[in-house]
Amino acid sequence: MTLDAVLSQIDSDLDAATERLKALLRIQSISTDPHYKNHCDAAADWLVADLQDLGFDASKRPTPGHPMVVGHAGDGGPHVLFYGHYDVQPVDPLELWTNDPFDPQIEDTPKGKVIRGRGSSDDKGQLMTFVEACRAWKAVHGTLPGKISIFFEGEEESGSPSLVPFMEENAEELTADIALICDTGLYGDSTPTIITQLRGLLGEELTITGPDKDLHSGMYGGLAMNPARVLAKVIASLHDDEGRITIPGFYDGVPELSNELAASWDDLGFDHKEFLGEVGLSEPAGELGRRPLEMIWARPTCEVNGMNAGYTGEGFKTVLPSIASAKISFRLVGMQDPHAIRESFRKMVTDMMPADCSVSFEGHGAGPAGHMSTDNPAFAKAASALSDEWPNAAAYVGCGGSIPIAGHFKTVLGMDAMLIGFGKDDDAIHSPNEKYDLESFHKGIRSWARILHALSQG
Amino acid sequence: MTLDAVLSQIDSDLDAATERLKALLRIQSISTDPHYKNHCDAAADWLVADLQDLGFDASKRPTPGHPMVVGHAGDGGPHVLFYGHYDVQPVDPLELWTNDPFDPQIEDTPKGKVIRGRGSSDDKGQLMTFVEACRAWKAVHGTLPGKISIFFEGEEESGSPSLVPFMEENAEELTADIALICDTGLYGDSTPTIITQLRGLLGEELTITGPDKDLHSGMYGGLAMNPARVLAKVIASLHDDEGRITIPGFYDGVPELSNELAASWDDLGFDHKEFLGEVGLSEPAGELGRRPLEMIWARPTCEVNGMNAGYTGEGFKTVLPSIASAKISFRLVGMQDPHAIRESFRKMVTDMMPADCSVSFEGHGAGPAGHMSTDNPAFAKAASALSDEWPNAAAYVGCGGSIPIAGHFKTVLGMDAMLIGFGKDDDAIHSPNEKYDLESFHKGIRSWARILHALSQG
Repeated sequence: MTLDAVLSQIDSDLDAATERLKALLRIQSISTDPHYKNHCDAAADWLVADLQDLGFDASKRPTPGHPMVVGHAGDGGPHVLFYGHYDVQPVDPLELWTNDPFDPQIEDTPKGKVIRGRGSSDDKGQLMTFVEACRAWKAVHGTLPGKISIFFEGEEESGSPSLVPFMEENAEELTADIALICDTGLYGDSTPTIITQLRGLLGEELTITGPDKDLHSGMYGGLAMNPARVLAKVIASLHDDEGRITIPGFYDGVPELSNELAASWDDLGFDHKEFLGEVGLSEPAGELGRRPLEMIWARPTCEVNGMNAGYTGEGFKTVLPSIASAKISFRLVGMQDPHAIRESFRKMVTDMMPADCSVSFEGHGAGPAGHMSTDNPAFAKAASALSDEWPNAAAYVGCGGSIPIAGHFKTVLGMDAMLIGFGKDDDAIHSPNEKYDLESFHKGIRSWARILHALSQG
Repeated sequence: MTLDAVLSQIDSDLDAATERLKALLRIQSISTDPHYKNHCDAAADWLVADLQDLGFDASKRPTPGHPMVVGHAGDGGPHVLFYGHYDVQPVDPLELWTNDPFDPQIEDTPKGKVIRGRGSSDDKGQLMTFVEACRAWKAVHGTLPGKISIFFEGEEESGSPSLVPFMEENAEELTADIALICDTGLYGDSTPTIITQLRGLLGEELTITGPDKDLHSGMYGGLAMNPARVLAKVIASLHDDEGRITIPGFYDGVPELSNELAASWDDLGFDHKEFLGEVGLSEPAGELGRRPLEMIWARPTCEVNGMNAGYTGEGFKTVLPSIASAKISFRLVGMQDPHAIRESFRKMVTDMMPADCSVSFEGHGAGPAGHMSTDNPAFAKAASALSDEWPNAAAYVGCGGSIPIAGHFKTVLGMDAMLIGFGKDDDAIHSPNEKYDLESFHKGIRSWARILHALSQG
């Protein structure tokens, strides 16, 4: 089966594909707000109908929250499961949008045409790249290039409460040879990527209590323990002068970057001045002696996400607070054990408590880092296919964040996953004026056609 | 003129005096809430009328806020100016009161009769001790024991915005030989006190800015500067391991406690276990090697009153905050210069800023410590008079807080002030169920009669 005819079909059908995406973008499928429940349902219905048109036995599957969309089609070849999500972020503040977020517009910009609207990049535009690739293949060949399952979720932007239970209940149906996830981006504007490592995440909230009520700092100040001072001391002690984290055993299981990956990342030419400059910063603030890209993708962190004590309103109150609290998160890499780190962190902090201070902890999630084994030949095939489509060769990259879905495919269904996406850094996902480059959409569709073709080759 | 007849008159008139206090307590003179403006006015009117009955040329004096009450009467002897405030704190939460806060009740308690109601101790009950002493003296002798001026304010609980301007505009009228301030308490239940030193107060708010917006800790964590960590380091560095404050020059002008005052304070038998035990603490947390009472009354402090960064709501957000801020106050003693300390603090913090962090400051007041010169013979006379009335001899004590009025009398009017009051630690001022012991009221009136008599003796 020839690929070229499919690529031509994609090119000639682009306007129609864009119209279909705009129709999907008009559905206000905000998952966090219960007022939009019917809109989420409508987005699922729209996708079911579109997949049925392509020959998928697609259906809307109920959950305690928003429905899943599951469909299967095709035969032979490696069985791939494609994941995306049809729900979108809220649109506030509405006044910052240049158009109605649910009335998508094609707009000319200095960098090319874009589709502007909520969900255009995250994730409706991305998931439609795969659907359109299937459509083109079907149009040319009358069939798909192998067995394909589709799995769309409607709760990604609200914490995916139904995801793992649904996977567990439908494990057999959802298990394929490999999962494809389209919810990530290019590196820069023209380097396609496959994410092969994701940092894990451990969240801890600690609350230090000193006096049993807020005190007047005139009456008690100088004599009474101030838990805000104790908290500051705890936080200040979590890093040493070289930016390393001081929790005993924290670096157990943290691997050094392989020479191969280090060289490949160096080739990306990451410009930390530019990256940091966009948010008003200039200097890498992580461990001394580490590459900037390594600090984000391959080194663990300990960050204060929130800190609170005493009076924080307008003006001044000479209160000596009873309680001081902080939310602290750890990004984890390699084989770091989140539970062992949690235990060590809690012991270290507890040991620091002076007389009259006690500390309590609340855990907020504990997920290890994710690693994709690039030994699976699908990786090399996909990388080669992507390299054929884009100006630059595909790169195996890291991701500083945590994309739980990849871990779930591995732990619940035993599947490797390839994270491939076509978003750009300036897509403004989760923000006003979200957009998806028409180039991302067009070359994204072509990329999937190439990948499906490559995977179907023995 | 005999004192005994006046004391007898006070004893026999106590029931009527209590009824007069209850009448004043029924007026809802909450100064912070504009809805109660007319009530504040009514309280001033009530006091003007009562003072006129005693022969004072009293009048209500307008200010941009609530009115002052000023009156003069009597002749000869040292001229004393008596200060009190007729405004009261709000009463929330109302449901915690055992009676209507503005329907005062006499209540039997295991420790004796109390008058329960808002303002009973702070400060209507206290100011009426002086008015009733004048009334009894007048009743017995037909005249007062010297020239007496009265100065009541109605904005003490809302920051006294009109106080200093009013003093400045009426400096000549308000200047006397000595000021008497009745807004403080006994030491324990039976030791009358004259406060001779008050700590000063310097307030500073600092805001550290790193990235120009909140960042995603997955995308930036490990590479971007986190201002919450910087703030923690700043706060942790403000004290050394012995509890001393590390700001350069901070201890300039801090005197050692005199042997005499040290011995006198030791005689008070301060039980820090009991004092701290009431708020769930046990150990003095100030400078090593200092007396607990010294820590509160005679040593300077640096306290965190508030601290805020990032996400502090329910649950967790992996945000890397753009801004971290803290409110820090310093209690000052001796000749510490608040402006020099402010400057040194700001320089120290600014010098600690790493690349990509900037810090801004906002000052919230800067008042030096207050010291009454006990060389003025009025102090010995008042102490002796108080010692005659109460079970224990009067003590010269310190006050950890700042009572600005004492400083204003000195700096604006050039007058020494004696801070003498009869409140008890369990009066619950500013809280629900405020009360004033009938003993405080009765012996307070007798105390003023004795003091006025002592001052009038050449």
